[in-house]
Amino acid sequence: MDDDSLYTRWEQRTEIPLFLASLLFLATYAARVLAVSMPPGWRSLCWFTLLVLWLLFATDYLVRWILSGLRFPRFARTHFLHTVVVVLPLLRPLRIVPLYDAIQHRQGAPRLSLHARVIAYASLSTLLLGFAGALAVFQQERGAPDTTMRTFGDAVWWAAATISTVGYGDITPVTAGGRAIAMGMMAGGLALLGAVTGSFSSWLLQIFSRESDRRPPEG
Amino acid sequence: MDDDSLYTRWEQRTEIPLFLASLLFLATYAARVLAVSMPPGWRSLCWFTLLVLWLLFATDYLVRWILSGLRFPRFARTHFLHTVVVVLPLLRPLRIVPLYDAIQHRQGAPRLSLHARVIAYASLSTLLLGFAGALAVFQQERGAPDTTMRTFGDAVWWAAATISTVGYGDITPVTAGGRAIAMGMMAGGLALLGAVTGSFSSWLLQIFSRESDRRPPEG
Amino acid sequence: MDDDSLYTRWEQRTEIPLFLASLLFLATYAARVLAVSMPPGWRSLCWFTLLVLWLLFATDYLVRWILSGLRFPRFARTHFLHTVVVVLPLLRPLRIVPLYDAIQHRQGAPRLSLHARVIAYASLSTLLLGFAGALAVFQQERGAPDTTMRTFGDAVWWAAATISTVGYGDITPVTAGGRAIAMGMMAGGLALLGAVTGSFSSWLLQIFSRESDRRPPEG
Amino acid sequence: MDDDSLYTRWEQRTEIPLFLASLLFLATYAARVLAVSMPPGWRSLCWFTLLVLWLLFATDYLVRWILSGLRFPRFARTHFLHTVVVVLPLLRPLRIVPLYDAIQHRQGAPRLSLHARVIAYASLSTLLLGFAGALAVFQQERGAPDTTMRTFGDAVWWAAATISTVGYGDITPVTAGGRAIAMGMMAGGLALLGAVTGSFSSWLLQIFSRESDRRPPEG
Repeated sequence: MDDDSLYTRWEQRTEIPLFLASLLFLATYAARVLAVSMPPGWRSLCWFTLLVLWLLFATDYLVRWILSGLRFPRFARTHFLHTVVVVLPLLRPLRIVPLYDAIQHRQGAPRLSLHARVIAYASLSTLLLGFAGALAVFQQERGAPDTTMRTFGDAVWWAAATISTVGYGDITPVTAGGRAIAMGMMAGGLALLGAVTGSFSSWLLQIFSRESDRRPPEG
Repeated sequence: MDDDSLYTRWEQRTEIPLFLASLLFLATYAARVLAVSMPPGWRSLCWFTLLVLWLLFATDYLVRWILSGLRFPRFARTHFLHTVVVVLPLLRPLRIVPLYDAIQHRQGAPRLSLHARVIAYASLSTLLLGFAGALAVFQQERGAPDTTMRTFGDAVWWAAATISTVGYGDITPVTAGGRAIAMGMMAGGLALLGAVTGSFSSWLLQIFSRESDRRPPEG
Repeated sequence: MDDDSLYTRWEQRTEIPLFLASLLFLATYAARVLAVSMPPGWRSLCWFTLLVLWLLFATDYLVRWILSGLRFPRFARTHFLHTVVVVLPLLRPLRIVPLYDAIQHRQGAPRLSLHARVIAYASLSTLLLGFAGALAVFQQERGAPDTTMRTFGDAVWWAAATISTVGYGDITPVTAGGRAIAMGMMAGGLALLGAVTGSFSSWLLQIFSRESDRRPPEG
Repeated sequence: MDDDSLYTRWEQRTEIPLFLASLLFLATYAARVLAVSMPPGWRSLCWFTLLVLWLLFATDYLVRWILSGLRFPRFARTHFLHTVVVVLPLLRPLRIVPLYDAIQHRQGAPRLSLHARVIAYASLSTLLLGFAGALAVFQQERGAPDTTMRTFGDAVWWAAATISTVGYGDITPVTAGGRAIAMGMMAGGLALLGAVTGSFSSWLLQIFSRESDRRPPEG
């Protein structure tokens, strides 16, 4: 039995538990940020849970690295998304897309078309990026004296305006931490949104060109 | 006579009356939102008309579903635009594009080129999305105490700045309802606008590359 | 001698004088808008010049229509850019691109590559749209009591922020006329900018893929 | 030995020293802008260093022009990036991309895929454009009486919001110089960002379509 099959077996065994752990991570972080009047005991429990979960993710990353048999910089490059989600564990639920794909594949279910999958993947990623970003920026901004971001609803509204590049400016981060996270969201949001609109455009052209050959469009 | 021909016959018989009904729906909704000092009797009539028209659309959707002979999730997916316009009946006039196309086809009229049709379709959709969004957000915001959206003109100006992602921020929704609709407009507007600009870009390249072979450009 | 050659001959004879007339139109309009303290006599002269030039453009359009031998809606569609510049004569200098192209062609000069020509064309159009839009919006806004657009420099800055969809919102039109022109600029700007970025992206990919085959990139 | 090989030899000998000189130029300029309370002697030294470095770059440009054996307008066009970085020496570190590429090539290292290279190139250029732009605008704005850009952190935040076209408008340049540089950043940023998103979109489609043939996605 060679390394590759060990790697695959590790992936198949751990992917569902780790995905659930990533959801728990996101939920714990959200609870920590949003439940302002949490008693100190619970607060410590939250931080402890986050730490344990992150160690779990780091262990998974290390095991994958060893099983892959690759050197470090090369592993980090070829498993780029794994590397990103170890550094930014809030984005880990993104792995639902390959997971869902893999499960569908095993069950032999028909898969979505290429463009539909890219749109679904990039849209889900954008939503998750927006939600995680709103949480993280809200945590930074809540304490600032001259903030305009008073509720989590404000943070979500700000995140939507930022990722879509509308940028009203009625609510903006004022702390250095909040602005740094915001810049990351701009970069990621732009790339993902470009993928959504690009694929949607190609997909629309495809539908229209297919309909030219057949009867008038369906609806 | 099989199911498909029944479906097609239903479509051909109902498409023009239903399109007129969708215009009536949009007009009634606009009247309801814009005519502030409407007497209560008329107001109830408006709501009643909207309800009846929506039931009509829902019935059409049900009949199509039965005639198509498909299971539900699959029908909702393959007839995605039908599903969207049942949930958001304000966007139903969008069906003018396939309708116009079908009529042109029956009369044997020459059809627009592929890119021109995608541009026309996406531009019309963007306009309709902007108008319906401006109406819906204006209805939410009108009552808010600290709103900056005082007239319907403000709402249209805000909608244009939002869908084009310019986002000046001189006028922004402040209610939760208005912001939720605004997020939907950002998502839809970005996808449609990407389709417009993408197609326009391809179309321009096509025109220029065609002109390279012939004489200098016409106009 | 058939209609087509008459059309071509008309085009060749008139294109250079009409282009100079379009520059005069833009300059006169700019003078009219920017020279606030112009004596009434000069002001009337400006309007008179604009009217005469516009009648010239309208006559050219009519002659082309007759010489083309086409019915009206079809002529307006196939000569779309001509139709646009009759309605919006400020954009008429756009015809420099086909003019320059035609002159280069007659002299047998080597033409730019496809992508370079689309980029040049769309960039020039964007600049002209921004300048003409800044002039037209400034004329609307200057008199408004609560305007933030005090100088023509403000108008140019606002136009750049609008066409690039940055939309700071530090300066925004407040009159209905100014906002209507601004919406037109958003629509046109987005389409043209999409063409610039799309072509630039394709062109960069082309350069990089060409360099993969040869030596390392030049610079 | 012909002109071309002289040109290549000049390039190989000078590229590393000139790249280090360009980093020194950027660092000196940054020191000049950011160190407010610099003694006058150091200030003069900074200007002197910038001048000497720029003369170095100009000499390199002249030598390349002579060695290339081309006429001026043609040389400026075919060596477009060289021409840009002589006029705007702050952007000169951009030459790291062809330099890195060339070194990798000589060592026979495997090169990144086409899309990855365009993404890397355009992202690096965007970062550099943003940093250089933030420095230059901050220098213009610092003295202005009614500025909202008080620290260099504000300038970086403004630059990120501008290049991503989010444009909150919480911080905006108010001087003519700052606004002129900002317009250049909008133009450059849009083109580069379009290249990043376009390539990312193509690259994502490529990955997804490759995975359709093989096993479910890796991560």
